[in-house]
Amino acid sequence: MSETKRTTFDRSDLRVLTREDLDALEIGAGILGTGGGGNPYQGKLLALQAMNDGYELSILAPDRIAQEAVCMPVGGIGAPVVGVERIREGREGLRCLRAMEELLRAPIDAVVCEEIGGANSMSPLVAAGLAGLPVLDCDGMGRAFPEMQMTTFSIYGHSSTPSVMCDLHGNVVTFTHAASEVWHERMARACVVAQGGGAMLAAAPMSARFLCRYAVPDSYTRAIALGEAVMTARRRQEDPIAALCAHQTGRQVFTGKITDLRRHLRAGFAVGELTLTGFGNHHGESAEVKIQNENLVFAREGIVEVSVPDLIVILDIDSGHAITTEMLRYGQRVSVVALPAPQLLRSEEALAVVGPSAFGYPDIAYVPLEPAA
Amino acid sequence: MSETKRTTFDRSDLRVLTREDLDALEIGAGILGTGGGGNPYQGKLLALQAMNDGYELSILAPDRIAQEAVCMPVGGIGAPVVGVERIREGREGLRCLRAMEELLRAPIDAVVCEEIGGANSMSPLVAAGLAGLPVLDCDGMGRAFPEMQMTTFSIYGHSSTPSVMCDLHGNVVTFTHAASEVWHERMARACVVAQGGGAMLAAAPMSARFLCRYAVPDSYTRAIALGEAVMTARRRQEDPIAALCAHQTGRQVFTGKITDLRRHLRAGFAVGELTLTGFGNHHGESAEVKIQNENLVFAREGIVEVSVPDLIVILDIDSGHAITTEMLRYGQRVSVVALPAPQLLRSEEALAVVGPSAFGYPDIAYVPLEPAA
Repeated sequence: MSETKRTTFDRSDLRVLTREDLDALEIGAGILGTGGGGNPYQGKLLALQAMNDGYELSILAPDRIAQEAVCMPVGGIGAPVVGVERIREGREGLRCLRAMEELLRAPIDAVVCEEIGGANSMSPLVAAGLAGLPVLDCDGMGRAFPEMQMTTFSIYGHSSTPSVMCDLHGNVVTFTHAASEVWHERMARACVVAQGGGAMLAAAPMSARFLCRYAVPDSYTRAIALGEAVMTARRRQEDPIAALCAHQTGRQVFTGKITDLRRHLRAGFAVGELTLTGFGNHHGESAEVKIQNENLVFAREGIVEVSVPDLIVILDIDSGHAITTEMLRYGQRVSVVALPAPQLLRSEEALAVVGPSAFGYPDIAYVPLEPAA
Repeated sequence: MSETKRTTFDRSDLRVLTREDLDALEIGAGILGTGGGGNPYQGKLLALQAMNDGYELSILAPDRIAQEAVCMPVGGIGAPVVGVERIREGREGLRCLRAMEELLRAPIDAVVCEEIGGANSMSPLVAAGLAGLPVLDCDGMGRAFPEMQMTTFSIYGHSSTPSVMCDLHGNVVTFTHAASEVWHERMARACVVAQGGGAMLAAAPMSARFLCRYAVPDSYTRAIALGEAVMTARRRQEDPIAALCAHQTGRQVFTGKITDLRRHLRAGFAVGELTLTGFGNHHGESAEVKIQNENLVFAREGIVEVSVPDLIVILDIDSGHAITTEMLRYGQRVSVVALPAPQLLRSEEALAVVGPSAFGYPDIAYVPLEPAA
C-alpha cells in the first residue's frame, strides 16, 4: 500500500536514524527495560539488517503528523528468556501491519512503540521501516512492563482490540473483541505460549491526537540520548552509572553481590527474586529485588524503598551494562539504580494497573521516587 | 441478514425437528459420543428453549441445497467436564455466525455440524435456529473426537481457518490463518483454556458440493433413528443395548463392573483409563478402556480388540444410557459396545489423523471392526 500512502506529515520533520543511533538506543532501551522487555541486541541486528537492505528507519514527533492519522502500535509478546534463543523470522511485524490494514480496509499512517524499554524499542522500527512508515517518538510505558494492558494507551481508555498477532510459523490470530484489556492479555498470552513463546502483536490503531495527550513523550530521542550519555562516559573512562543517574535524575540505591537468585518461567513469565549482599558504601547491608519479567520492588533489610512503576535498573558494576532478568547470575557484582517513572504512570488510574498491588503486592504503598538531593 | 437471505434450497425439503426428535437425538448423540463430545442434555435444553421462543430447528440434506451454498461448521470447543458445570450463555454460536459473515462480507446459507457425537449435535441446531437457517444432515466425524483437525473436512483438505471463536464473556477471537490444521487446534485450545474451558467456534465455510463428497452422510437422521430405536426398546421393556447393536450393526464386547478408574484434566482434555472386571458371560475376564475425552481403545486381558476410529460405547447396564467420561464412577456396572466407524474415517489419510497412532498408541494397528456374525 506504500504506493498510495497519504501525506500526513512533512518529510523534513523526520529524524532518520543512523547506525550510531541504534547503538545508543540499544543501551538506552536496555536501561529503561529495568531487567525486562527482552534484550534489544537481537532487535538491533534486525534493524541494522533492514538498514543494510536500504530501508529507512525514522522517528517523528506525534504533533508533527496529521492529528487524525492512523497510528498502529506493534511489539513483541512473550517471555524475554525465550527471545534469547528463539530468533524471529523478521517480518512478523510487517505481517501484523498488513493484516491490520486488511482488517480495517484502510492504510496505516505511522507505527507506535508500546514499550520503549528492551527489545520492543527496536521492533516497531523494523516493521515501520519495511512498510516505509515512520515510528512516532513516544511510547505507552516509558519503560518495560510484562503485560499488554499496562500501557498508558489502555490505562487512559483506548481499547487495544481488534489486534493481530503473527508468529514465525505464519500463524495469524485476530483478537476481534475482548471483554476487557485484561481478557485481551489473557487470551493473547495463552496463544503466544501455544505458539512457542514469542510472536508480534499489533494493537488497534489510535489517532495522533490521542498519542499527543496520552503517550509518554519523546521516548526515542530520550532513550538515544541516554545511551549516548553512557557511551560518552565510557569513552572518557568516566563512571557510566553516574552518567546514567545524572541524565535521568536517578539515584544509585545499592551496590553489592548477587548471593541468591530464584527465577523460573511461569505461564510465559519469568518470575523470581534475587538477594544482594552489599559492599563498598553498602557493606554489611542486604537487599532484595522482586522480579516479574521486570525488576518490580527493591527492599533494603526488608524495607521497601523503590517500587513499580518507578524504574529499578540492575547494572554490571564493571561494564555499566544493564543486566536483563534472564542474564542475572549468582556472584555478579551489581549496582542498583532507581529512576523516577513518567507522570502518566503515577496517576490513580495508572497505579491501579501498574502499581505494586497490580503485581500482587497489595501491602506495598507506592511512594514516588524523588530525584536525589 | 435474515431479511436478505438467498434462496438456496426449497423449504419443502426441510425436516423441521420436534421435541421428540430432540429427545431421540439426545440419546443417539450420547451413544455416538463414545464417552466424549460433552453431554447433549444441556444442549438439548438450549434447543428446546429456542423452540419455545418460536425458532424453527430444521435439517436439510446437503444435496438439497445449492451446491455453491456457503455452509459454516460450528461447535463447542473445550473439555466436556467443564461443560457440565459451566452453562453456556446461549448465543455464542450465533455471535460466531455473525462474526463470520462480517469477516467474509457475505451471508452464510446453512450451518454444518462438525461432530454428531455428544453436545455438538445440538449446538449447530441452536445457532442455525436463531439465525433462521437449516443445519445440513451430515457431519465431520460420525462420532466424537477430541481435537478440531479430526474432521473429515480437515482430513480431506478443507482449511478450517479463518475461524471465529466466541465465549460467554463476549470475547471474539479470529484465527485468521493457521500454518496447519494442528496449529489451529493448538492455538484455539490454548485460547479456550484461558477463557475458562469452553467456547463456541465457527470454522471456515465450505460448499455443499464439498460436503456431499467429504462429510459423513445422514448424521442427524441416523442419530435420531438410533435414539428412537433405544427409546422404543425401553418402552417395550426390551433390551435397549441389543436394540442399539441391531440398529448400528454393533456388537456387545464386554459386561462388567468398573473396578479402577484413573482420570484427570490435562491441558483442556480429560485423559485416563478404566479397568473392568467381567461378570455374566465375561465372568473371570478383565478389560481396560483408554480415554482421551472419548473412549479410544478397548483391550481384553491386555489384548487390544477395538480401537479408534471405531466407536467404543460404555452404557449403564440397567438403564442402557451411554455414560460420558466425566460421569464414570467406580463400581458402575456397564456394558461395552463396539460400533464400526464410517468408511471416510478408515482411509489411509484418515487413519493418520484419527487412528491409534494419532492418539499416542503407535504400537496398536487399527483392525476394522466387522459387524458381528
